[in-house]
Amino acid sequence: MTQRHMALGAFFHPTGHHLAAWRHPGAQIDAGTNIDHYLDLARQAERGKFDFIFLADALACRHGNLDALSHWPQYMAYFEPTTLLAAMAVVTRHIGLVGTATTSFNQPWDIARRYASLDHLSKGRIGWNIVTSSNQAEAQNFSLDRHFDHADRYRRAEEFVQVAKGLWDSWEDDAFLRARDSGRYFDPEKLHRLDHEGEHFRVRGPLNVARGPQGHPVLVQAGSSEAGRGFAARHAEIVFTAQTDIDEARAFRLEMRERLAREGRDPEAIRILPGLNPVLGSTSAEAHALRDGLAAMIPVALGLEALAPILPEVDLSGCDPDQPCPLHLLAADTNASKSGLETFRAQTLAGRTLRQIYTDYINARGQNSICGTAAELADHMEHWFREGAVDGFLIQPPILPLGLEAFVDGVIPELQKRGLFRADYASNTLRENLSLARPVNRYTAAGIRNLDPRL
Amino acid sequence: MTQRHMALGAFFHPTGHHLAAWRHPGAQIDAGTNIDHYLDLARQAERGKFDFIFLADALACRHGNLDALSHWPQYMAYFEPTTLLAAMAVVTRHIGLVGTATTSFNQPWDIARRYASLDHLSKGRIGWNIVTSSNQAEAQNFSLDRHFDHADRYRRAEEFVQVAKGLWDSWEDDAFLRARDSGRYFDPEKLHRLDHEGEHFRVRGPLNVARGPQGHPVLVQAGSSEAGRGFAARHAEIVFTAQTDIDEARAFRLEMRERLAREGRDPEAIRILPGLNPVLGSTSAEAHALRDGLAAMIPVALGLEALAPILPEVDLSGCDPDQPCPLHLLAADTNASKSGLETFRAQTLAGRTLRQIYTDYINARGQNSICGTAAELADHMEHWFREGAVDGFLIQPPILPLGLEAFVDGVIPELQKRGLFRADYASNTLRENLSLARPVNRYTAAGIRNLDPRL
Repeated sequence: MTQRHMALGAFFHPTGHHLAAWRHPGAQIDAGTNIDHYLDLARQAERGKFDFIFLADALACRHGNLDALSHWPQYMAYFEPTTLLAAMAVVTRHIGLVGTATTSFNQPWDIARRYASLDHLSKGRIGWNIVTSSNQAEAQNFSLDRHFDHADRYRRAEEFVQVAKGLWDSWEDDAFLRARDSGRYFDPEKLHRLDHEGEHFRVRGPLNVARGPQGHPVLVQAGSSEAGRGFAARHAEIVFTAQTDIDEARAFRLEMRERLAREGRDPEAIRILPGLNPVLGSTSAEAHALRDGLAAMIPVALGLEALAPILPEVDLSGCDPDQPCPLHLLAADTNASKSGLETFRAQTLAGRTLRQIYTDYINARGQNSICGTAAELADHMEHWFREGAVDGFLIQPPILPLGLEAFVDGVIPELQKRGLFRADYASNTLRENLSLARPVNRYTAAGIRNLDPRL
Repeated sequence: MTQRHMALGAFFHPTGHHLAAWRHPGAQIDAGTNIDHYLDLARQAERGKFDFIFLADALACRHGNLDALSHWPQYMAYFEPTTLLAAMAVVTRHIGLVGTATTSFNQPWDIARRYASLDHLSKGRIGWNIVTSSNQAEAQNFSLDRHFDHADRYRRAEEFVQVAKGLWDSWEDDAFLRARDSGRYFDPEKLHRLDHEGEHFRVRGPLNVARGPQGHPVLVQAGSSEAGRGFAARHAEIVFTAQTDIDEARAFRLEMRERLAREGRDPEAIRILPGLNPVLGSTSAEAHALRDGLAAMIPVALGLEALAPILPEVDLSGCDPDQPCPLHLLAADTNASKSGLETFRAQTLAGRTLRQIYTDYINARGQNSICGTAAELADHMEHWFREGAVDGFLIQPPILPLGLEAFVDGVIPELQKRGLFRADYASNTLRENLSLARPVNRYTAAGIRNLDPRL
């Protein structure tokens, strides 16, 4: 069954995705410490019938040139995602809530538990964006000299997620009897230890949270390296991608569906959502004026600094912004996101200057950016969706709350009118709104009873 | 200055503190997965003008005899505290929110960050109950064979809290300029790395959360071993205790105040709150009938199992409940809470049977339990408070929500009438409601500017 309408996520950076967003009057200037701002965003996104809200994360301030960074609030000071999602759950009823947690510097018991607890708290609306982190700064906050290598990260992630899935099945769905007369609160045969002993973790279990309304949280992933794709094929139910070309996007989606089939999963069990940066105006000219105005507020030093996640071990601060990046700087093998680096290399080889690249990057954050009217944006989304290149989009408003309001009031009705998006939620769980199956408990499926008299 | 009124905390176990609470119709039977129950409790406690809500925690299911445990929901399956506090913050405006997190199986960067973020989320109402865990089961969920020894736990806790305090000062209070015209979001001179290198942790910092409304969360602690008292004297602002004798309580409070003075802290900077289990009725006979009815619902196996935290390495399941505990079982040196074990030993030496001890323990959970009318409970509280034995109480309702409602509707007005408790909140922060000073940022105090051009 092909999904009848597109899936939409709303990706919130505090003041919005554009580096200069906070300087615009449409941004909530103290967003990183303003809970009311986030509660309003959550209500707005639910008004727009988004499938889910998405929060990125990092376990460190961004390192770099401090003078440049001081012009930019992002990744410096903001709310922790799991507690913020809990707050947003209270003021909403239908919308999904997806948070990011790294497998590199957390422990599986803690993350499995917090997300299971959040699934109850939100009555079945939680998703976990699984990242391995490409951020050297994080390692230094967790007693390590340097981050794990790319391959190690993914091996650890694989084991981490297997442990989490095992822990989420600790209690069978019908384990809780709550029988006041007999005095039996739960059925001991339906509680299962995990007794995991692996390369990175030993976890006895069981989890001290009942199985969630969704069975497991919806699993989300974004790496598009070979290791990342393999991981996604085994575990992910939503994949965030970064293709900016429709043919590449279609090929990626097809490849992922084939990979799922090879893993024995239903190819319909995954939703491929590229990021999309909408810069909206009531006319195309108005939208371009907004974008150019934002770009003009970026100092060169900040523009160069913004490229650091792509080139984490390279100092661009001495470079001429109006020349292409010197090629020898791109030779180093980095521990960063592979896809961002490849794009950067291709653009440099095509002769684009650092300023051109960073301006594009700032506008789009490595994703597609559409600058125009609501109808023009809907045209783009419709084209990609009808061509089978995507299952939907992760919307990255450049300015918050302004850009979210503009999308909800302008683009959503346009998509609804075209039959591309829901008029209302069909369910109160994220899984059901995305037509994703609820995982069956492994012990229930195998008919395994726990007969150990001791826990 | 002596505090004019007592401080009161409301300690929520899912269905209440009594092991049989869930079988009573006044309990929310599915409390461990019912978010609406907790949101209602939070609103009720705020209606009662409590200083704070308190949530205990453990990073494991309780181990033991599974048949016995299956009669008892506590410490088996319930919400994770930090996310639950975030949800409760949204539906309240004044009441403090204190969560438990262990220093033994967490990382200081993560805990410092979550509690700082919660302080913003709640607009200054967060407290952190610092525990070192006496729970062998937790170690086995975190890749360890066995838990750290008592002394190691406290050394690690000391370093953990020092790191957390350092991270909370990463940003000076006025670091955020948010100057739209100049484009400067923050002042780089007011952002500070920690560069901590210690025995247990290396943490570079800075924290990616702005300094909270309270500066640091209110720090709470409960250990009463020598190591625990020393730790409390250095760090704690609220201490939960377990004295059941007024003279011992007065002596403990005096000792703690003296210890604070020796550490160079103001003796007024700490609030000593023993736990108090109120079993309320409109008559004393009604209260006793409630207590006896609850006790009658405890199977012997569960009664013996309930003592396991005091005697974690001892199997009582073969013991005659109507005899005292065989003394040789008490010889083993355990890694458990020291104060609980001493009380148990003294009671056994005094000839009390296992059934008598476990019934008392279940009624009071090692704390004082007062069974009677609201006026009788208020008499007890007034006596202890006026005698200088306590700064207030941590109220542990036996049944939730019933026991909280009974306290709010019966005891709170009685305390207010006697001038012992606030008629309304004086502030919206936990610190201010407790008359605790806001910590000054260490860098601001020392006039240290960050002049490093790179982060």
